[in-house]
Amino acid sequence: MRTSSRVESLRESPTRKIDGLRERLVREGRDVILLSTGQPSIPPPREFREYLASVLGEESMGLYGYTPSMGIARLREAISKDLYELGGITVGPDSIVVTAGGQEAMFSVLATILEEGDEVVLMDPTYFGYKPLIEYFGGKPIFVETEFEEEYNPDIDRLLEAINSRTRAIVIVTPDNPTGRLIRPEIGKALSDVARDKGLWLIIDEAYKTLIYEGEHYWFWRDAPDNVIGIDTFSKDPGIPGWRLGYVYAPRDIAPKIKLVSEEVVYCPPSFAQYAVLHYLESGMRAKHMPRVIEEYRKRRDVLVDAIRRELPWARLHVPRGSMFVFVDFGVDGEKLSEELLDKAGVATVPGSYFSNGKYNTFLRLSFVTEPPERLVEAVDRIARVLG
Amino acid sequence: MRTSSRVESLRESPTRKIDGLRERLVREGRDVILLSTGQPSIPPPREFREYLASVLGEESMGLYGYTPSMGIARLREAISKDLYELGGITVGPDSIVVTAGGQEAMFSVLATILEEGDEVVLMDPTYFGYKPLIEYFGGKPIFVETEFEEEYNPDIDRLLEAINSRTRAIVIVTPDNPTGRLIRPEIGKALSDVARDKGLWLIIDEAYKTLIYEGEHYWFWRDAPDNVIGIDTFSKDPGIPGWRLGYVYAPRDIAPKIKLVSEEVVYCPPSFAQYAVLHYLESGMRAKHMPRVIEEYRKRRDVLVDAIRRELPWARLHVPRGSMFVFVDFGVDGEKLSEELLDKAGVATVPGSYFSNGKYNTFLRLSFVTEPPERLVEAVDRIARVLG
Repeated sequence: MRTSSRVESLRESPTRKIDGLRERLVREGRDVILLSTGQPSIPPPREFREYLASVLGEESMGLYGYTPSMGIARLREAISKDLYELGGITVGPDSIVVTAGGQEAMFSVLATILEEGDEVVLMDPTYFGYKPLIEYFGGKPIFVETEFEEEYNPDIDRLLEAINSRTRAIVIVTPDNPTGRLIRPEIGKALSDVARDKGLWLIIDEAYKTLIYEGEHYWFWRDAPDNVIGIDTFSKDPGIPGWRLGYVYAPRDIAPKIKLVSEEVVYCPPSFAQYAVLHYLESGMRAKHMPRVIEEYRKRRDVLVDAIRRELPWARLHVPRGSMFVFVDFGVDGEKLSEELLDKAGVATVPGSYFSNGKYNTFLRLSFVTEPPERLVEAVDRIARVLG
Repeated sequence: MRTSSRVESLRESPTRKIDGLRERLVREGRDVILLSTGQPSIPPPREFREYLASVLGEESMGLYGYTPSMGIARLREAISKDLYELGGITVGPDSIVVTAGGQEAMFSVLATILEEGDEVVLMDPTYFGYKPLIEYFGGKPIFVETEFEEEYNPDIDRLLEAINSRTRAIVIVTPDNPTGRLIRPEIGKALSDVARDKGLWLIIDEAYKTLIYEGEHYWFWRDAPDNVIGIDTFSKDPGIPGWRLGYVYAPRDIAPKIKLVSEEVVYCPPSFAQYAVLHYLESGMRAKHMPRVIEEYRKRRDVLVDAIRRELPWARLHVPRGSMFVFVDFGVDGEKLSEELLDKAGVATVPGSYFSNGKYNTFLRLSFVTEPPERLVEAVDRIARVLG
């Protein structure tokens, strides 16, 4: 019996494919160094877990029941306050839709705004999750190449050339996955102007907004509060990717529509994760937790970057200012190299081609957060051996 | 800026609307008796919660990390075993896709099978969640009226008249929401024959399959394993609706496609809920927990039904054999009655029209699981007063 033609175009997520290969190698007893996932390696703080253990003792249905589809009101208030404290932006609770993770946030937002034939402008390189979703909703991804020399900040003239009457939205990931770049303030300002002038949605994926090592997050909402749709997640901070909790913030007229889609998709976001994050935000736990996390990840980033510069001094890279990844040009076919690294050297990586429309085929994305420092050095040794 | 035309047709879920009104009354200090939700009132067993509290003490990322999109392999094995123990059906782990609740199961299944213009046959009455989803995917819901006198078991000739070359699937909810009826074996057999003969999907929503007071669940997979797509949830058993965990089981060629959609929708089901349910199934906790739950709910069902028969002997109802609801014909406009009951008497109910294409407009759906017995009697007193 046949299935929907839209589904026929879906493919397994690239990192899922790599996960599968890696798991097979591990089952075969191979030692695999994991540079392929964007998963934190530091669990949420002890107080966070102790709090949850204590509420599990209560004999009420409160913790287990459905919540409003937009999320618990008090959580939306806490997120509103958090956005003000982090970015100085005023986003009311009615503009916030809590979702079952960042993926569902992306899904429900694109479902809400896209019509068959709409075009969405993506940076090249960018996170690989957007292209298949845009295509699933009948839209067309339009890539705007960014330059290594510009530290992947887009050129505004080139961006303007990609915009026409079918353009519906521009997607910006900042801090970026895979490159770790931050949008520079003058570029952020110019992007906001373009979105306002052309009447476009500015979808800002801020999954890593509190994982910054140097520099500051650019808050587009300050410039273009009528155009910005923020895609946010609690996967990286406080570090509960599997629990599936994220949120969208958007102008007040569109937020209720995103909520209607989200209600059809998952009915409500997971209640347990909502109560956990509510406590995390209200107790001010982040102030103690995230500096520790950032210090550890920065150390690992520096270890990885230093090892590459020492052993492979010709490899091109920018030291990532945020996120969990360093994007490295090894000057050879990235897909082949990635395959060889996994097969011959037991190092899992993600080829740059997965994030790019062709320009970054000689790059690999390396995560520096999952493995401890000595394993990162060992990974670079292995890469150097394979590259000869 | 405009939104997708598909989204423009979405409306807030009917029970969400009632929830909103109810919450307003409660804020105003009114005492509202809750007969409107399908939410369990008995939390998961103490051992279940103690187990989770203990694993929260561990310092690893295991509990927090992403899981495979189809769900943890061991959980899919436990579900496979569970289906064999409950129904004697053989469903391999590769046929099982764990989802973020029953709603996401419905969403991902319909996204997988429906093409613009496809028709889906629904019973009248049936759970109101299917119609908007079918329409969202460009399909057309076709209602087949069932009769009170037949205890809502469908007439096969009438069903056949509703099927044509555009028909893609038949949806059966059993035990039923809103009526509590079970599909009778001879009807189940005939439905399976139709699905096989006509090459149709048989979508079997079994949310209440272990909440049966009298009679037995009909397992369609035994008759038509190539046609059945099971929609299942852990919301009712063990009773964690807010945690969003469910699953789909389907033939092995379609299950991977449903997984691809689910991966785009939520990336993976919530890990915490997966570990919780894995322990629930593997420890055999259900054998102690559910008989207690069923005993309590049966008692409440009988209290509610007895009170209606005593105070409103002319009201028509069948004693529900399963689920959480009794579907009652009060002989007057159900939407008006439901509104009046909430406004004047503080009793929250759901009008029959929400489940029907017109035939059951004089019915109300009353949940008997949320309120304690004395409040159920009080609710019937209030209903009798409003009806005069």
